[in-house]
Amino acid sequence: MTALHSEPFSDHLQKAWDASNSLVCVGLDPDLAKMPARFTSSTQPIFEFNKEVIDATHDLVCAYKPQIAFYSAAGAERQLELAIDYIRQRAPHAIVILDAKRGDVGNTASAYAAEAFERYKADAVTVNPYMGEDSVRPFIKDASRAAIILCRTSNAGARDFQDLIVDGAPLYRHIARRAASQWNQLNNVLFVVGATYPREMAELRKAHPEITFLVPGIGAQGGDLKATLDNGLDANGQGLLISSSRQIIFAGEAGQIRAAALALRNEINTLRGRE
Amino acid sequence: MTALHSEPFSDHLQKAWDASNSLVCVGLDPDLAKMPARFTSSTQPIFEFNKEVIDATHDLVCAYKPQIAFYSAAGAERQLELAIDYIRQRAPHAIVILDAKRGDVGNTASAYAAEAFERYKADAVTVNPYMGEDSVRPFIKDASRAAIILCRTSNAGARDFQDLIVDGAPLYRHIARRAASQWNQLNNVLFVVGATYPREMAELRKAHPEITFLVPGIGAQGGDLKATLDNGLDANGQGLLISSSRQIIFAGEAGQIRAAALALRNEINTLRGRE
Repeated sequence: MTALHSEPFSDHLQKAWDASNSLVCVGLDPDLAKMPARFTSSTQPIFEFNKEVIDATHDLVCAYKPQIAFYSAAGAERQLELAIDYIRQRAPHAIVILDAKRGDVGNTASAYAAEAFERYKADAVTVNPYMGEDSVRPFIKDASRAAIILCRTSNAGARDFQDLIVDGAPLYRHIARRAASQWNQLNNVLFVVGATYPREMAELRKAHPEITFLVPGIGAQGGDLKATLDNGLDANGQGLLISSSRQIIFAGEAGQIRAAALALRNEINTLRGRE
Repeated sequence: MTALHSEPFSDHLQKAWDASNSLVCVGLDPDLAKMPARFTSSTQPIFEFNKEVIDATHDLVCAYKPQIAFYSAAGAERQLELAIDYIRQRAPHAIVILDAKRGDVGNTASAYAAEAFERYKADAVTVNPYMGEDSVRPFIKDASRAAIILCRTSNAGARDFQDLIVDGAPLYRHIARRAASQWNQLNNVLFVVGATYPREMAELRKAHPEITFLVPGIGAQGGDLKATLDNGLDANGQGLLISSSRQIIFAGEAGQIRAAALALRNEINTLRGRE
């Protein structure tokens, strides 16, 4: 494997924010049921669709986040590899996050890390912490690669277990504390924090001023952008990867996709004073 | 998709136990680093290896459990499809469990369910419950397909969060209670309960006499078989899928693989009085 980005992940991320002047992360979730008809006759519809999205947004975003479930369901692993290669050509500054929510015992977690970082050459992967430290370690042993730990997710079911109270604080706070204090020696641990729960985001930001949050839930899921920025920005007006998928990738023709990404970038930059 | 098994999962499982007189589930974890040299020159080494294991064990086991990480790391999705097809030919009674530990928001979880049940035609899939009910629902809506919920896993890190005390009981007990009481309407919810923690298994069996446990941790991980059976068997001397991987699949030549599976089946059957 030749790592395309070998600098520390934290440096890569800072450069990605600076180069794009953007906190936007585009979710590449090519749900075949929603894909525009103009792609369906292609032999590689998922790749062609992603290519159009990447071409339309390459200079407006700091990150791309393919959700692997859509590729796995369609048997489209090769098209995922091609999409990530294409991101490296068109948006060499960008972070590539494989949204896979992996989590398993040590030797299996190592295989998942090989999938994310060697096969797909992603820079970061989302990781489910329920199985504990040994399930996370394989993802954080290389400083150039990052694990984004599920803390407080954006869905309704997030309340079911993540909010259960342990020693006076919700479970997700305990996970965040463990991740920040014990797993982040190489500065390559981030959190998933949903935009749909602004109070929880504020608490996590207060407790963890230096951790970057990947924020799903803006747009289709109803998260409020202003509340997200008010509660989630770090002291430098960064510290967030604001993920949007359907609202951008299914906006229409290429020009509409670009307009949707630009509007989100600009709205964020206005709110954080970076116009 | 044509479902190969369309009867309720619970009926299929009962038939699998009866037909094999076995509680053994063979984990098909084709770690390329451990694979015997005789397969490495094949164009489909993972499939050929699995084929040998399936041929050697087809009548001795109730289930096969491919760990998808090893296929994903190797880009061997097609060989996984072939292995599952081969199980259907050689061991038509057997349950196929896709060990994937999936867990994501609703529409993504639906894509993962399509991966497991439509693409790979598995009967069951392991599911991580951290994201809550909406992340589990897509896996349990068809009575012929099952979700095996991570409760108390076999690894060291299981202690980190699964054991945190909520309202006087560990988190995993709350998850088990929710899964059994609210998600099991179609009798297609199972639990993962590691063999390495016999006391926890005993508590879960007492609280959930009717739920089947998938039990990793025998063999390489050090779980005790007698303690597992003493604490985990249900009132019918069943209720367990005892998973073994390395100890069987890397036992050596085909005859040694068969001998290892037979020894485990017989040891279990002696302990449960089913010789």
